[in-house]
Formats: sequence, C-alpha cells, structure tokens
Amino acid sequence: MALLKRVNPSSKVNNDTGFGTNASDYGGRFVNRDGSFNLRKEGMPFWERFSVYHSMLNLPGWKFVVLIISFYLCINLLYTIIYLLIGVEQFTGMLAQTNWEKVKEIYFFSTETFTTVGYGRVNPVGDGANFVASIEAMSGFLSFAVATGLIYGRFSKPKSFLIFSDYALIAPYQDKTALMFRFASYKDNHILTNVEIKVNIGLQVEENNKPIFKFFDLHLERSRVDSLPMNWTVVHPIDENSPLTGFSFEDIKASDVELYVLVRGFDDVYSNVVLQRTSYTYEEIKFNYKFKPMYRESINLVISQN
Amino acid sequence: MALLKRVNPSSKVNNDTGFGTNASDYGGRFVNRDGSFNLRKEGMPFWERFSVYHSMLNLPGWKFVVLIISFYLCINLLYTIIYLLIGVEQFTGMLAQTNWEKVKEIYFFSTETFTTVGYGRVNPVGDGANFVASIEAMSGFLSFAVATGLIYGRFSKPKSFLIFSDYALIAPYQDKTALMFRFASYKDNHILTNVEIKVNIGLQVEENNKPIFKFFDLHLERSRVDSLPMNWTVVHPIDENSPLTGFSFEDIKASDVELYVLVRGFDDVYSNVVLQRTSYTYEEIKFNYKFKPMYRESINLVISQN
Amino acid sequence: MALLKRVNPSSKVNNDTGFGTNASDYGGRFVNRDGSFNLRKEGMPFWERFSVYHSMLNLPGWKFVVLIISFYLCINLLYTIIYLLIGVEQFTGMLAQTNWEKVKEIYFFSTETFTTVGYGRVNPVGDGANFVASIEAMSGFLSFAVATGLIYGRFSKPKSFLIFSDYALIAPYQDKTALMFRFASYKDNHILTNVEIKVNIGLQVEENNKPIFKFFDLHLERSRVDSLPMNWTVVHPIDENSPLTGFSFEDIKASDVELYVLVRGFDDVYSNVVLQRTSYTYEEIKFNYKFKPMYRESINLVISQN
Amino acid sequence: MALLKRVNPSSKVNNDTGFGTNASDYGGRFVNRDGSFNLRKEGMPFWERFSVYHSMLNLPGWKFVVLIISFYLCINLLYTIIYLLIGVEQFTGMLAQTNWEKVKEIYFFSTETFTTVGYGRVNPVGDGANFVASIEAMSGFLSFAVATGLIYGRFSKPKSFLIFSDYALIAPYQDKTALMFRFASYKDNHILTNVEIKVNIGLQVEENNKPIFKFFDLHLERSRVDSLPMNWTVVHPIDENSPLTGFSFEDIKASDVELYVLVRGFDDVYSNVVLQRTSYTYEEIKFNYKFKPMYRESINLVISQN
Repeated sequence: MALLKRVNPSSKVNNDTGFGTNASDYGGRFVNRDGSFNLRKEGMPFWERFSVYHSMLNLPGWKFVVLIISFYLCINLLYTIIYLLIGVEQFTGMLAQTNWEKVKEIYFFSTETFTTVGYGRVNPVGDGANFVASIEAMSGFLSFAVATGLIYGRFSKPKSFLIFSDYALIAPYQDKTALMFRFASYKDNHILTNVEIKVNIGLQVEENNKPIFKFFDLHLERSRVDSLPMNWTVVHPIDENSPLTGFSFEDIKASDVELYVLVRGFDDVYSNVVLQRTSYTYEEIKFNYKFKPMYRESINLVISQN
Repeated sequence: MALLKRVNPSSKVNNDTGFGTNASDYGGRFVNRDGSFNLRKEGMPFWERFSVYHSMLNLPGWKFVVLIISFYLCINLLYTIIYLLIGVEQFTGMLAQTNWEKVKEIYFFSTETFTTVGYGRVNPVGDGANFVASIEAMSGFLSFAVATGLIYGRFSKPKSFLIFSDYALIAPYQDKTALMFRFASYKDNHILTNVEIKVNIGLQVEENNKPIFKFFDLHLERSRVDSLPMNWTVVHPIDENSPLTGFSFEDIKASDVELYVLVRGFDDVYSNVVLQRTSYTYEEIKFNYKFKPMYRESINLVISQN
Repeated sequence: MALLKRVNPSSKVNNDTGFGTNASDYGGRFVNRDGSFNLRKEGMPFWERFSVYHSMLNLPGWKFVVLIISFYLCINLLYTIIYLLIGVEQFTGMLAQTNWEKVKEIYFFSTETFTTVGYGRVNPVGDGANFVASIEAMSGFLSFAVATGLIYGRFSKPKSFLIFSDYALIAPYQDKTALMFRFASYKDNHILTNVEIKVNIGLQVEENNKPIFKFFDLHLERSRVDSLPMNWTVVHPIDENSPLTGFSFEDIKASDVELYVLVRGFDDVYSNVVLQRTSYTYEEIKFNYKFKPMYRESINLVISQN
Repeated sequence: MALLKRVNPSSKVNNDTGFGTNASDYGGRFVNRDGSFNLRKEGMPFWERFSVYHSMLNLPGWKFVVLIISFYLCINLLYTIIYLLIGVEQFTGMLAQTNWEKVKEIYFFSTETFTTVGYGRVNPVGDGANFVASIEAMSGFLSFAVATGLIYGRFSKPKSFLIFSDYALIAPYQDKTALMFRFASYKDNHILTNVEIKVNIGLQVEENNKPIFKFFDLHLERSRVDSLPMNWTVVHPIDENSPLTGFSFEDIKASDVELYVLVRGFDDVYSNVVLQRTSYTYEEIKFNYKFKPMYRESINLVISQN
C-alpha cells in the first residue's frame, strides 16, 4: 500500500486551508466529527490557552448545574470557616448548643447572606462578622450576576443544529460515480438561509520520496441553497477534475484521506450567521452503499448496503 | 385543468431553493404567511426537534407572563410539599394553628425564600428545613437569572417589523402586465437599510407524465433599495422572460403556484441584519385588482377591484 | 426662482433610494440631522407603530433614570392601595398609630417587598396580604430583570459616535469646485474599520409642468478608508458628471436640494457594523466658505468664511 | 541618512488608509503593538471623548474587581452619612452605645439594604430613614443590574486571541528576500475561519523638499486561509513590485517605516467577526534573523539570529 506519487493534475489544489503540509506533524484526524480541531497547543501556559467562556458555554447542561451547585456549597463553606474563625459570639439569635450545631447554624446563616435572603434571626453584631457578611452579600450578588450572564450566554449562543450522515459514500450517481454525504437541520423552526457548503480533501502523497499532505477543493454539484428546510445530499461527482479520480478504497486508506466540511448559513432565530464544521476520515467513507430513500419531511440519514 | 407541460423556456430556473422536486411530497403551502416553513420533521424525537429558546422568544407576551406566573406558583407548591414532608416543627415563628393554616404559612415562607425577600418571622431551625431553604434560595435566584435572560432575549431579538399586502396582484402595469405586491415597515424609527428582496416561484408541471415541482427566480423591476422609509411596491413584469407568461388564472390554480418572498435588510436599532420570509399561494393572487393609491407617509396596503 | 427643467444628463440617477418621486408628498427635509427619518406613519395604530425597545434605548440617560424612579414610586403606591384595601390588620409588627402613619408604614413595607430587602419587622400574617406580597416580590424581581436587560441594551447597543460638520461647503478645491463636508469619530478608542460613505442628493425638477423629486448618486473623490482614526473631509468634485454642475445658490434653494449621507463601518469595541445617517438641506450648504485648517489629531469641524 | 526621494514606482500606493500625509503631524508610531491608535483627540471635552463602555470592557480583571468593591464601599459610606444626618433615632433594634459604634451599625445596615439582604434586626421606623432605605434598596438593585450587564459584556465581547511575533524579519525566503512575521491563535477551541490579513506600510519620503508620508499595500504570498488552527507565517516577497525593493536597514530607519497589520476572521465561539490590529515599526524589523523551526502544534513565535 505505497503512497500515491501523483494526484489527478486537473484537480484544484487548495494551499489556503491553514494546515501545514508536513505529514510528520499529524497523527489521526485533523478535525473531529463534532467540528473541533484535533490539536493541542503547546508552548503556551494552560491558563493562557484555556477559554473559560468557551468552556462554560459548551459544558453539557447537567455538568453546568453541578458546577453551579458545587460552587455554591463550597463558597458557603469558605465563608463559614471565616465566620467561625472570627467567632460565633459575634452573632446574635443563635439557637445552637453544641459546636457542630453552631457550625451548621453559621453555614445556613452564610447561605442566607450569599443569596440575600437574610431571614435575620441569626444576624451579625460584631464588627468582623458584620464586615464579612457585607462582603459575602456583595459577592453573592455578583456571583448571580455572573451566573445570569453565563445562562444567557448559553442559550443565546448561535448554534447550527445540523446532523450529518455517519458515513460518506462513494457510489454510482446518475451515470457517473460520486462522493456523497447528507445533512439536515433537526430543530423545528431553525431554518438556515443562504446556506453555503465548502468541502476540502486532505491526503498524503509522496513527493521527493517524502510523504506530504496536499489539500484540494472538491467541486460540488451544488454548493449553496436558498434555505435548508429539508435534507441536503451533498454530491461531489468524481469526474475528470476530481482529485479522487481513479482511487480505489485501498488508495483512500493509504493516502489517509480526510474530508473537511464547512457549512455556513444565516439562522433566523438568532439573526446571526452560524457555522458548522465536520470531517470524514477514510474509515467513514463507504464504497457501494447508498442512502435510504428520503421520505417526506423526515430526517433520515442512514444508509443501506447496495 | 390539466397540468402544464412546459413553462416559458426563457425563464430562469432555480435549482438551489433547497426544496425537493417530488410533487407527491407536498400538500398545501410550503411557507406560511408568517414566514415559517410548513414542515414537520419526523424521525427525530420531539425533544431533539423542539427549540426551547425559539419557543420562549416567540411566545406571545401574555402567554409568556402566564408561563412565568405558573412556574412561580408550581415551584413554590413543590417546595411547600418538601417542607411539609420534613415537618413544620423545623420552623420557628409560625402563628398557624390548624393544618390548613400551616400549609399556607409554609407556602408563603417558600415564596419569601424563593424571591429572597426573607422577612424572617417564620424561619427554619432544623437541618432539613435549613438545607432545603438554602437550595430554594439559590434556585430562586437562578430562576430569575433565566427569566432575566429570556426577557432580554425577547426584546433584543432582531425583528423586521414588516407587513405585506394580503394579496399579490396580476394587473396592468405601465404598458405591460405585472405581478405586484406591497410591503412596508410599520414601526416608527425602525428603518431598514440596504434592503434586498428575492422572489421565487414554485409550480407543478407535468414531466414524463408525472407532476414535478419546478422553481424559478422572478426578475423584479427593482430588487434593492437604499433604505425603506415608506411603502415598496414590488413589481415583476410578466414579459418574455417570465415563467408566468401566458398564464391564465386557471393555469395558476392548476399548477399550484406559490410565491416565496425573502426580504433582508440592516436594522439600525438592532444594528443587525433582519430577514423576513412570506409567501403567496394561488389563492392569494388576484387578477385585475389594483392597489389603492398611496397617500403620503401612510401605510396602505389594501387593494380595490379594478 | 423657477424650478430647473433638467439636470446634467451625464449625472447618475439613483432610482433605488426608497423615496418616492411625488414632490407633493414631502414638506421640509426627509432626513433629520441626527439621522432619523422625518416621516410619520399613518394608517397603523400607535401601539403597533411604537417601538418600546427603540424608545428605551434612545431615551436620554436622565429621562431613563426618571422613568425608572417614577415606575418604582408608582408601583409601590399601587401595591400600598391594594394592601390597605385588604386591611392593615393582616400585618404584624406595625408601629403606626394614626391612619396616615399606617399608610406610610405599608408603603415602606411595599418597597421592602418589591426590592426583596424584607427587613421583616412588618410582615404579613393574613392570607390576602401574604398572597399579594408573594406576587409583589415576584413582580419586583421581574421588574429588575427588565431593568437589567434595558440597562445592558443601552450600553451595549452599537453606536457610531460620529460628528459631522454643521455645514457642507461648495468651494474651490484643487483646480475645480467641490462640495465638501467633514466628519470624525469623537470617542477615544472607538476606531471604525472599513469605513464606507455614500452620498445621494435629492432635488426637485420640473417635468411635464409638474415638480417631481429626482435622486442622484454623488461621485466622491474617496468613498472608503481602511480606518478612521482622524477627520475625513468628504469631497464631491463638481465636474462634468455632477448633477450640481452649473448650479447657483439660487438653483440649490429653488430645487430644495438635500444631501443624504450614510456612513458604515466596523467598530472594534462592539465588534459590530455601525451605521450613521445624516443630511444637509440647502440651508446647510454654504458657498465660498472653507474649513479651518486641521491641526494634528484635533477634532475641528468648524468653518471660516473665505 | 537623508530621506528617500522616490519609492519603487511599480509598488501599489494606498491613499485610503485614513491617515494623513503630513509628516509633521506625526511623532512616534501610529498604531501601538496592542492595536490601539496612538492618537489623542483634542478639541472635544474629555467626557465626550471618554467611552465608559469601552473602558469597563477593557479594564484588566483585577482593576474591574477593585473598582466594583470601591464603588460598593463608597456608596455605602454615602448612604451612612445620609442616615446619620437624618438621625439614628429613626432606627429601631440598634445595639450600639457609643457614637462610633452607631456609625458602624448604620454602615452595616446600609450594606444590608444595598445588597437587599435585609436581616431586619436594625430597621428604619422614621419617615426619612424609611424613604432613604427604599431608595437605597432600589439603587442597590440597579447597581447590580449594571454590574450584571458589564460582567456579561466583558466575557461575551468577541476577542481575537492572537499573538504576533515580537519582530518582523527581512530574510532570505526561497530564492528571494522577504519580509515575514508570524502570528497564531493561542486559545484552545477558538478557531478563526475565513481569516484575512491586510498589511500596509507607511514611510516618509521627500517630495518637493518636504517630508511626506506615503502608504503602500504590501502584496502577500497568501492573504487568506480557510481556518487558522496553527501558526501562520505571513510573507511579503520583496520583488520588483514591492515598495521595499532595494531598501537597506538605514533606509528603513531613515524613512520611519511602520507596518500596519489588520487580521479579520470569524470566531466560532462568539459566532462573530473579530478583528485584530498591530504594527511593527522599523525598530521591530530585524535583518537576517530567522524564525525558529516550528514544531507540531506548538506556538512558537521566537526568532534566532541567522
């Protein structure tokens, strides 16, 4: 399974992908199925690289809730310790007798302060306790301000709501062969307008006895639609200008083929451009399968063997 | 009323609408008057398809208020039940004598906690009640955080504020016949800039003895304006390049004509692009009516019979 | 001062301004200095036309504060009346003796509830008072949610921060005559990028013995700049293609000339496109004045007589 | 080190930078390394020029926190003074004996009111104290509304997260000489799409015996990439069309060369266009250095001497 020496010379090379050509730089896929890049940036400290906002926006919902609750429990624990260090005698209205009861009573005083409920049965009379309580109330309010922002950010963040077929197919199409995959918008009422799709392909070839990566634009039968109410089967005819002309499955595997898919459209609900990236590696490209026929208005991206 | 066999061959076919051509897939209109698509997506579970954010943003105002109040009443009921299960003896300061009075007093304690008012006459002393109250206060605060986000999302969501004439007309225009409809921006101070309009037409024709849908771009006398301070009468001259050349009303009805209208513009107030879609089916296309003359600065989209 | 019969035939007519041509439709200027349109929309009820969001965002700051405070005082008055109708005997902890004192004490109870402070000395014990208080606390919280949204909307709304010279000049420029005006960005750190300017002119001419409005694009010496760190003097050379060729001041006045100016650019701080409109009527066009020389980095838009 | 009299006549002059040509207007650099313009706007009062929103969004995090805490401490001090002027006898529940204790107790009452905690042990009974407390609670709530907006604005503001190499190099490249610099996106998961770069150069030449500034577009080997997962070495070949053809280091210094760099791209996380500006002055241009070889996925923008 030697590397190819040359690719169809009529195909359209794309030197502007932003990826390098040095094959030894890569292992596995470039782009993950969910559209994220398979890169780890070295040479910058973690805190410089880490994007708090991105992380908070992309955490699964249940993790976000767990994070908020954990934060709430911990920060109250912290304030409880501070109050205990200052001394419980700076509070009035406490009913607790034992030390453990006092810890609990102070803890719940802290939650009442942090959330600004302030029932007031227990309340601070000493200077230290008063001062810390005034800081806690402010920090509580600000924490909820941050939470408000994150919650709003989470549900107002434009998303594309697209699903892609699990596999791309190389199959007969009209009187030729074509590379095909499907995608669809799966949310009711999220219709994309002016949808554009761009597909690049990356593959290893041998040049001067060294494997290098080359990138090509794939010509598509249709690369934009006015709107995307239903499924879209993206078709790249493997014709005389295609870089895939004459490829067998073995060639595809040997040259470590990866398809890069980028979809852009304008979402009405967010009134914003949304963008979705995905990729298919050679393992996700099937020969001689076909898509099940589409039924009306159904989202049906599965395939059946020919 | 047989289907047409052919449409004016000089007209401009649009294969990029995103709709399919299989006539049996459709029944009724594609696009509703309010611009939503007349599609139901099958094959995905409801919760995957349902867009909470879109729904909350597009609920009528009164329903949104009812939803918030209902949520408020129910969540307090839920916490009341939890407190009652824990036991009213974990609270101090209660005045209630009978069971029913106790339920009410606990319910109002819950509302005071959820809203973080916390008068404090009734307040928890037991561990369970204290813990639940601390969770309730936090959940209350977070609920209002969500409400803040939704309220902001509702009034900051870019909207186009356009009204369209109820009917499209086919009527004499200058020395030809034209298809016309009108629209206008109806909000004071919401002026659209760089307004573009695109009109497609979909109709059934018979091909190989099977009805299929074909889509055409309609050439417009004017398809963009610098700004939209007033009414705009959109005019498609039915000339030698129009797909409607030679159509009678019966042809329009038989071929199930539907006009797809897409307006885009930049709104100053939102500093954002807004987009409005609408459609006219053959039932909303009138022959030989005309628009009432426009008076200065008035929004007047009604028509009168010729 | 008769109307002109014809305008320079080499000048570029613009039929896509979105304004009509019927001169009797207009009185005074189309576009105000601040960029709003001088139109009143009739035929739609006020509440349909009125844009609450736009109004709240564009209220001067002090009016916005007065509005919030007035709302706060009034809503508390309303709740006070409701509590008084329910009866002060449903409250505990009141110190008031006289009726007037009771009114005041209930009013301040209301403010404590609306803001969720809830000191709790005065607190409701009856069902009616408890219920209204629970509703008031919720409505208070939601009101502040609305206020949060409006405040955020006010300061995050993209604005262009441009000032325009009070007058446009017609004056010698290089070896020709030119129409000129100046503008500049006046906020530190708000730099516009990819700034484009478009200037149209509207004027009345006589056609078939009736006055009609015609609109022309004005060719500009420079119509975009990479960025706008400093002043920009916009120059329209009155050459053989200008609609103003051969115009005297009397012609300008007689034909009711109005310049429409539209500036677009990308603002770094808002990461958004901003847009500013303004206009100059014939009264704001001066002959044979010149701009004072610009000094480094100063915003200097005044003019001096030649 | 006399000024150059002429620059390569085949190079492409850019008259649309938005900068003036009058050399005496400038001193030092135009654009700072962080992309801000090195301008001070005169002729407008400070409060007109000052952009509160921009300042709040760009304050370093710790300064923002200090500002909020300072505001909180000061506003409570202000309210404390007002309460003291009204008189401590308008409060009930106070434990303080001495004047200083009373000041502190009122101060903490103020913090409880401003944050809407409202424990309620100390609470106002007089009309004046009640009225001021009701205003304070409202102002507290609104202050946190402002803080919520600012916090959300801070973390949702689109940023480009790009780092540029400290130096631009003039070094052999392939078989020519080229001007080069590097940049990279340093945040994980913030990938830019459709990245465009534009580089202008400004330099002083002598014309009619006066130094003037001229601006040129630099032709780049590659001026856009599909996405920016890794480093990008921007290359301007110094060929027959380059304004830098034949420049020695002395020429670069004498003519006060400054490179203006503008990068634009679409950020997935913000779903928004982001823009970054930077510049290199002649002091940041090195001759005959080279970039250290890039290792896989590392951010490595340092250079080593040739």
